[in-house]
Amino acid sequence: MLINCTAYQNGRKLADLPTEEIGTYLRLPGCFVWVALKDATPEEMASMKAAFGLHELAVEDADHGHQRPKLEEYDSDMFVVMHLIEESNNRLKVGEMHVFVGANYVLSVRNLSEQNLLGVRARCEREPKMLAKGSGYVLYALMDAVVDRYFPIIEKLETELEALEERIFTKGAARSNIRRLYQLKRKVTVLKHAVAPLMEAAGKLQSGRVPEACAGSQHYFRDVYDHLARSSASLDSIRDTITTAIQVNLSMVAIDQTEVSKRLAAWAGIFAVATAFAGIWGMNFKYMPELDWRYGYLFGLGIIAVSSGFLYWRFRKARWL
Amino acid sequence: MLINCTAYQNGRKLADLPTEEIGTYLRLPGCFVWVALKDATPEEMASMKAAFGLHELAVEDADHGHQRPKLEEYDSDMFVVMHLIEESNNRLKVGEMHVFVGANYVLSVRNLSEQNLLGVRARCEREPKMLAKGSGYVLYALMDAVVDRYFPIIEKLETELEALEERIFTKGAARSNIRRLYQLKRKVTVLKHAVAPLMEAAGKLQSGRVPEACAGSQHYFRDVYDHLARSSASLDSIRDTITTAIQVNLSMVAIDQTEVSKRLAAWAGIFAVATAFAGIWGMNFKYMPELDWRYGYLFGLGIIAVSSGFLYWRFRKARWL
Amino acid sequence: MLINCTAYQNGRKLADLPTEEIGTYLRLPGCFVWVALKDATPEEMASMKAAFGLHELAVEDADHGHQRPKLEEYDSDMFVVMHLIEESNNRLKVGEMHVFVGANYVLSVRNLSEQNLLGVRARCEREPKMLAKGSGYVLYALMDAVVDRYFPIIEKLETELEALEERIFTKGAARSNIRRLYQLKRKVTVLKHAVAPLMEAAGKLQSGRVPEACAGSQHYFRDVYDHLARSSASLDSIRDTITTAIQVNLSMVAIDQTEVSKRLAAWAGIFAVATAFAGIWGMNFKYMPELDWRYGYLFGLGIIAVSSGFLYWRFRKARWL
Amino acid sequence: MLINCTAYQNGRKLADLPTEEIGTYLRLPGCFVWVALKDATPEEMASMKAAFGLHELAVEDADHGHQRPKLEEYDSDMFVVMHLIEESNNRLKVGEMHVFVGANYVLSVRNLSEQNLLGVRARCEREPKMLAKGSGYVLYALMDAVVDRYFPIIEKLETELEALEERIFTKGAARSNIRRLYQLKRKVTVLKHAVAPLMEAAGKLQSGRVPEACAGSQHYFRDVYDHLARSSASLDSIRDTITTAIQVNLSMVAIDQTEVSKRLAAWAGIFAVATAFAGIWGMNFKYMPELDWRYGYLFGLGIIAVSSGFLYWRFRKARWL
Amino acid sequence: MLINCTAYQNGRKLADLPTEEIGTYLRLPGCFVWVALKDATPEEMASMKAAFGLHELAVEDADHGHQRPKLEEYDSDMFVVMHLIEESNNRLKVGEMHVFVGANYVLSVRNLSEQNLLGVRARCEREPKMLAKGSGYVLYALMDAVVDRYFPIIEKLETELEALEERIFTKGAARSNIRRLYQLKRKVTVLKHAVAPLMEAAGKLQSGRVPEACAGSQHYFRDVYDHLARSSASLDSIRDTITTAIQVNLSMVAIDQTEVSKRLAAWAGIFAVATAFAGIWGMNFKYMPELDWRYGYLFGLGIIAVSSGFLYWRFRKARWL
Repeated sequence: MLINCTAYQNGRKLADLPTEEIGTYLRLPGCFVWVALKDATPEEMASMKAAFGLHELAVEDADHGHQRPKLEEYDSDMFVVMHLIEESNNRLKVGEMHVFVGANYVLSVRNLSEQNLLGVRARCEREPKMLAKGSGYVLYALMDAVVDRYFPIIEKLETELEALEERIFTKGAARSNIRRLYQLKRKVTVLKHAVAPLMEAAGKLQSGRVPEACAGSQHYFRDVYDHLARSSASLDSIRDTITTAIQVNLSMVAIDQTEVSKRLAAWAGIFAVATAFAGIWGMNFKYMPELDWRYGYLFGLGIIAVSSGFLYWRFRKARWL
Repeated sequence: MLINCTAYQNGRKLADLPTEEIGTYLRLPGCFVWVALKDATPEEMASMKAAFGLHELAVEDADHGHQRPKLEEYDSDMFVVMHLIEESNNRLKVGEMHVFVGANYVLSVRNLSEQNLLGVRARCEREPKMLAKGSGYVLYALMDAVVDRYFPIIEKLETELEALEERIFTKGAARSNIRRLYQLKRKVTVLKHAVAPLMEAAGKLQSGRVPEACAGSQHYFRDVYDHLARSSASLDSIRDTITTAIQVNLSMVAIDQTEVSKRLAAWAGIFAVATAFAGIWGMNFKYMPELDWRYGYLFGLGIIAVSSGFLYWRFRKARWL
Repeated sequence: MLINCTAYQNGRKLADLPTEEIGTYLRLPGCFVWVALKDATPEEMASMKAAFGLHELAVEDADHGHQRPKLEEYDSDMFVVMHLIEESNNRLKVGEMHVFVGANYVLSVRNLSEQNLLGVRARCEREPKMLAKGSGYVLYALMDAVVDRYFPIIEKLETELEALEERIFTKGAARSNIRRLYQLKRKVTVLKHAVAPLMEAAGKLQSGRVPEACAGSQHYFRDVYDHLARSSASLDSIRDTITTAIQVNLSMVAIDQTEVSKRLAAWAGIFAVATAFAGIWGMNFKYMPELDWRYGYLFGLGIIAVSSGFLYWRFRKARWL
Repeated sequence: MLINCTAYQNGRKLADLPTEEIGTYLRLPGCFVWVALKDATPEEMASMKAAFGLHELAVEDADHGHQRPKLEEYDSDMFVVMHLIEESNNRLKVGEMHVFVGANYVLSVRNLSEQNLLGVRARCEREPKMLAKGSGYVLYALMDAVVDRYFPIIEKLETELEALEERIFTKGAARSNIRRLYQLKRKVTVLKHAVAPLMEAAGKLQSGRVPEACAGSQHYFRDVYDHLARSSASLDSIRDTITTAIQVNLSMVAIDQTEVSKRLAAWAGIFAVATAFAGIWGMNFKYMPELDWRYGYLFGLGIIAVSSGFLYWRFRKARWL
Repeated sequence: MLINCTAYQNGRKLADLPTEEIGTYLRLPGCFVWVALKDATPEEMASMKAAFGLHELAVEDADHGHQRPKLEEYDSDMFVVMHLIEESNNRLKVGEMHVFVGANYVLSVRNLSEQNLLGVRARCEREPKMLAKGSGYVLYALMDAVVDRYFPIIEKLETELEALEERIFTKGAARSNIRRLYQLKRKVTVLKHAVAPLMEAAGKLQSGRVPEACAGSQHYFRDVYDHLARSSASLDSIRDTITTAIQVNLSMVAIDQTEVSKRLAAWAGIFAVATAFAGIWGMNFKYMPELDWRYGYLFGLGIIAVSSGFLYWRFRKARWL
């Protein structure tokens, strides 16, 4: 679905144009065309391929979807894939953003995502000086927008993790802790798969042999790279903490288990003593003098109570109870 | 076993030919010969070695089999090994694909695998413009076909893993979960051994000093490389998830264990109290007034019932029962 | 909040000046201006941006905060971010130090930290020969001061860890050990995030293509780099030890558990024997000769005592008790 | 102990010679001398050092033994160390192979190993064309022979591991499984120490700046490198599987433990009920109507049997029994 | 404390000299001065700094101590830090060796260590040809001596580990095994911190751009590097084995635990049966025919013995006892 098709010259908007006229504007000097599609059909992609002379393999990838983030250069053109990540129903949904960049065009295709990027175009049009840098700057603006949207998701994961950390040392929450830590780890993996390969791509645009279209925007791509590095470091840190937390949680379960065993042993001991005494005085020997005492029963109950109490006190002191 | 032996000129099929005439066609300008073998015998390999002037060490490797995926350059010729992976009876079977590539020939040998690659030849013949790039393009077409067949297997592993993830938190399934996770990990290892070294090989054909025969197809080899990178990332992710899942499963077993212990302790406590009371009133002291009461028995049963009930309520509240 | 604004020429203090006059002094030959701010407001940053011609992206980062340590070059200017770490209430608080360095200016901004860096300026002014090296030396002095403050914190962590190591093999301390090890690990992570990226930045100032302003102070930056490497190695070592300690602690819990089980089993066995004997002699069979013996009761108690004692001795020998 | 001392010219054997005449033959054009020693004494090494002008440090290493595999270049000469691995009594015994290679000599010293390498010399002599490449080819032949002997040992480890994998899920074999997995891991470590550093050494002979003596045999050294890479990959895979297997085994033990606990709890419950009932009817209350019933005893036994049976059925259904 | 101060010319000892005359000898052609200090005071270091023109930062490091092993170049001079490791009271004590090397001087400072290095000087003086290589050779001799002293310590750790490995599978030794493995790991860490950074330093002296003073001794430094690589590989191997051993030990504890539980369950079962029967015949029902039998008691005991025996036999068969 076509969202926008606009030509820019020297950083200023020239005209919204129908896709058929793209060819005309591509020939104007200092002019570039920026087309935005959403959930593009193969037919739309085919017409774009014809209009901009996109490389067959890049179009194939875009049609097929399920790409990992990457930057591919086809001679002077580039094909960039980014992941758009949204949270819905406590799950992370992964959409894709495909950007084709040439010296005089930008084609951005957003698939399977509700995230609106119209703000990027608006901001670019408000800064003609920057937009005059050409298609490379548009690529930067798109990458910057996509990457900045990772931050709130990562921060939410950090908040979740901090909440979980409080609960690790709480008794009885082990089962749900593990389940949540596991889900958290899965989310971190999704984000890491979005961030790490894109960082590699941004690295290529920041230093070394930079594609021509991006040559004037190196500082800007380094900024994107730096944001990705920050995201990546946060994700690694979360992942590392989750691993430790699972391990610690397991330790707490084991400690819990030991404490339960000790308490079980203590009570079993106390009752075993009581039962043993009761059993002894329940024996049917003929000559058991204490059975005939006036206060034998009280005496027996007293012995049982005293020995149970003594054990209770001992176990208490040893912190088994 | 010979499957095909065909000569191509400028991207068009020239003739199917008997192996004896290979020499004649190799001398034609702009012509290359593509031979396909299946489960080649040492004799067949020897005749091919003579016909194409293959390097002794490469032929030795091909005869011996059990190679890891690799790309070896012998001056201007190349020797490529790929793994063909099929699933049968819930096991992954590894076959091998050996490809010898020179400026004017391609020899592909498929061993221990039922996977048919005739489709590759058909597709190549339908695109004369591509095939005109020569033997390097045929190598690409073969690699692309092999690599694309990894995807459905990896996807199946992902589906299996997702099914298992649901079961990790189910009680009582621990034993079979562990077994399945273990089997899954073994399969991932088999695939990883096919993918990782081949990725390294594809990397050499994509950038840097590329062998001459492949020089015109760099973008295509980068596409293969990218597919392998995607497979590799998926496999790493599955492997990582399996590791966590085993650890989590172990945690669930430990938690289960604690819960069983608690329940055991609770019931043991309740019965120990009942038995202790019964034991006390079973003692043979002469003077135990309550024994002579009219409703002493009921009184005794009542005490037992009330104390058992009280304990049951306490344990219930503490979530031990 | 402005702390200082001073101009230096040939290593000597020229004048404290109001910010409006910065432009005048920047034009003097061999002169540089060093401004120090604390918790700078966006307005203050904007005026500094105008005065020194700071790069927009660097100022944006400084305004936004939450940066990871880094060194960014904007043509001949540099932007350095460092973490200032303080301990308060057994937590590590992370502040930030932003330093903008140009050929003839240094702007240092300290955010969210109570750590006073006035001593750095005083020390620099006492060594005019060093200060004559210019803005690069000031950057060194600031980095050196920040990095040297990491050492006492790391040493405190090491002391804590050593104290904990003594306790790992103490029975009954498992729960608090785990909690403390976990907290320690969190602190190590905070420090590692301060040290590792800064080390990378210091590495760029020490060898290879060094920014011009720092060219004369390479040996000094290598010293900072070396201090960071030492910190980093210490932190890695602490982290590694914590991981082992958690694992060992878990082992100790498991061993404890086994010992508790054995003791439980031993006492249960002893009482079970006593109770079984008592039960047997409590049976109501008519003809049980020993019941009628004169010293049958003593005999019974003796049997019970002897068998219990024997078991006790056996368990003692097997180290179950 | 001297095994062989032979001079070769243009790939053909010239003469077996006494060590005193080595000097004479070294001066012949196109001629090289190949000496093989076994468990060389320091005296033998000293005379070889004199004859070939070996470097002091290399001879020191050879005398001292316990070297890790390596390749050291001394100007135009090379010193190569390889591990010879034999299995005896279910242990891996590590011998050493030291090879000194110069433009016109090869000195191979085999220490602490019964592995015969005479076959290598025989095979070389049968291929004069190859041997004509000189001392570098002899080094290749020796390395190839040593490396090829790793394969059967690695395959045996793989077979052992597969046998163990079957047993992991068998109950009651945990203790011996762990012991065997541990022993297997130790063997893998021994082999890994032989393979990994040698691979590094072979890498230097295969590409980049190759020592002159080996320049004509690069394809051959790459073949050795490839064999080592294959071995290394197999060993990594075994090691990885062992780690998982130990972890899985631990999980199986834990699951076993839970099952035992459940069964214990179930039987304890059943008997506790029986004992409680028996205890109640063993009380000495005066008025316990059911005691006087004609079939009271049967009634009592019935109650006990029914309640025990009910519990048994419940536990069975819950899979605790 | 000054130990030695000697001037050498062309590999031969010229004179022992008072520190005041160092300046005179430094000016002689082909002459170098070798000073050895022990636990140097800041005053001694200051006078040495003046005499040799040492760099301020290097002297600061030496005064401060607690350095990690390193090699720092200050223009044509070098500053090397090594760790001297001694065992005392089952702990590893870390001393430091600081070596300042210039074209015509060597200053070695040994701190906090009783290890005598006089032998190094003696050996150097016995080999004038080597010593004639100058200060770089002295540095080699010192490094070689320090590194060679690591071997016996590492071998002792290996012996300790092997002794421990025997004990892992011994029952009841778990607690002390863990403690020892933990201590061993700590020692390995201390050694690793001595070896790994020094290896990096030795690497710089062995290849690539080598400092001038060491240029003639590259083969010698490679030998040191190789020794360090061997030590490092041994330490990695020990560390890896310790990790596995801790894990295996934990497995053995878990298996032990299961066996104890089974035995507990078995004996509890046997006694529960006996107690249940005794309880039943202890009930007070009026009509319990077997109570009146002549051999009822024997019959009862028989039933109890037979059922207990049967259970014992069953548990034995199932290997629970």
